[in-house]
Amino acid sequence: MRIGVDVGGTKTLAVAVDDAGRVVAEERRPTGWGPRAVVDGIVAVVAAVAGGARPAALGIGVPGQISPAGVVRHALNLGIDVFDLADAVRSGVGVLPLIENDVRAAAVGAASLLPAAGAVAYLNLGTGIAAGIARDGMPWRGARGAAGEIGHISVDPAGPACRCGQRGCIEALAGGAAVAARWARPAVLPVVDVFDAADAGDPLAAALRADVVRGVTAAAHLLVLTADVDLVVLGGGVSHLGERLRDPVRTALAAAASGSAFLTSLDLPDRVVPTPPSAPVGALGAALLAGAPAPAVTGV
Amino acid sequence: MRIGVDVGGTKTLAVAVDDAGRVVAEERRPTGWGPRAVVDGIVAVVAAVAGGARPAALGIGVPGQISPAGVVRHALNLGIDVFDLADAVRSGVGVLPLIENDVRAAAVGAASLLPAAGAVAYLNLGTGIAAGIARDGMPWRGARGAAGEIGHISVDPAGPACRCGQRGCIEALAGGAAVAARWARPAVLPVVDVFDAADAGDPLAAALRADVVRGVTAAAHLLVLTADVDLVVLGGGVSHLGERLRDPVRTALAAAASGSAFLTSLDLPDRVVPTPPSAPVGALGAALLAGAPAPAVTGV
Repeated sequence: MRIGVDVGGTKTLAVAVDDAGRVVAEERRPTGWGPRAVVDGIVAVVAAVAGGARPAALGIGVPGQISPAGVVRHALNLGIDVFDLADAVRSGVGVLPLIENDVRAAAVGAASLLPAAGAVAYLNLGTGIAAGIARDGMPWRGARGAAGEIGHISVDPAGPACRCGQRGCIEALAGGAAVAARWARPAVLPVVDVFDAADAGDPLAAALRADVVRGVTAAAHLLVLTADVDLVVLGGGVSHLGERLRDPVRTALAAAASGSAFLTSLDLPDRVVPTPPSAPVGALGAALLAGAPAPAVTGV
Repeated sequence: MRIGVDVGGTKTLAVAVDDAGRVVAEERRPTGWGPRAVVDGIVAVVAAVAGGARPAALGIGVPGQISPAGVVRHALNLGIDVFDLADAVRSGVGVLPLIENDVRAAAVGAASLLPAAGAVAYLNLGTGIAAGIARDGMPWRGARGAAGEIGHISVDPAGPACRCGQRGCIEALAGGAAVAARWARPAVLPVVDVFDAADAGDPLAAALRADVVRGVTAAAHLLVLTADVDLVVLGGGVSHLGERLRDPVRTALAAAASGSAFLTSLDLPDRVVPTPPSAPVGALGAALLAGAPAPAVTGV
């Protein structure tokens, strides 16, 4: 029995996975703020899905930069600056966990549900934007653990200012926080509110929606043309827009390719797919990584 | 003795490489037009560096899309639409060659000269623009052989029109053919002419130079942020500008990162390096691939 945990800004979700890779138990609870509360949440959901038994292997997906030893850095949404999460969880659970970046873990989980694809990019459309890439079932980290960090690639020098100091970054166009700031109206789900208002004819909302679509389109386009992944899986909160987002993204990808036999041959629209609904991909990927033969290391 | 050949639009260059990976002989001649002339050129340079002996292994880097069996497609600069190059060369040389895309072969060759780097992108700045990526000494092709095909990623929706139908593609900004077309003055080396004229105060040249710099800057930026290669190696004809190109690119990368601790931490300027001058990287990479344990296959 392997257990995987996905620690998000709002919820901590655990799954138990049997030897065939099937999810056989699932538990979630709100994520607390700060290192101790994060660990307490992990320990609680692990205990719930393990049914009192000590897990054979434990994997945890968490935001931020992750060292090979399981030290988490810059997980600002969790109130963590630098924290030895692996050691703290071992103390609480009795098993040394494998720690992976949450988006990369989700890429591994999504890839396991899309076995025809040799390489998958999981494009996390959340408050920020980043992609995780899995190749042959394993996360691909790159030279410095930054592979897939496409949020701060500028695709429009005249685009909206980004918090990183550039203009027209993918995250400035399509990141949930950036959209909410530009929309500046109270809403539980600002991006959904923007799409609804755009449908109702609001011109600002229409402009913001167009930016979301072109940001996501640019992300998918460059992930395929640079990393040539088989599939770009749309995930994260913004992806709950479903076909309201995917359809215009696919249309834009087809339009961008229409003048080029080469680009058309890449079948860009068909390579953008939703997250498989059958399992929580972040926790599943963490569980699969915990059971993988080789420990995760930083590096290419 | 392994032999590698780099078939370029203007010249065909062969090297002989000893068991230690050192280049021990080199030969070049102009590339002919069309399949037969291309094969004749390959046979001639191979015979010259082999000194009459049959090579133990032969690798060939050639533009275009390459099938696992060595069929070359869309090598328009060579007058080749679809051609079984591997079979034709075997008939002429007596050895079945390994065929690889020329830019990917150059990435392998450059990586062999930069052994501290686990992953290298060779950014070919020629009439068109594409990158080849090598990881752990082997080419990385991607799902459909398109990894590194960054020329037609748009980074400015208001930028110059590209032959692919989009606007503001990296190739439209910085590709040699696009620059020559926009400059529209007779010149043996149009991009050098543009840089010279920009130095002399010509406003059109200054605008074109700025576009070249931002195209190359965008290419390096997105190669690091997407594939997280250790190094981006500038190669191809436009790279003969040397520090006149690298210095402003590095300055622009530093400026783009200056507002973000994350981007600054990536050391983007230091990761853009010239092609090592010690050996012709395309032919060297082809030779190394010919001697690699596993045959090259298409796929991730």
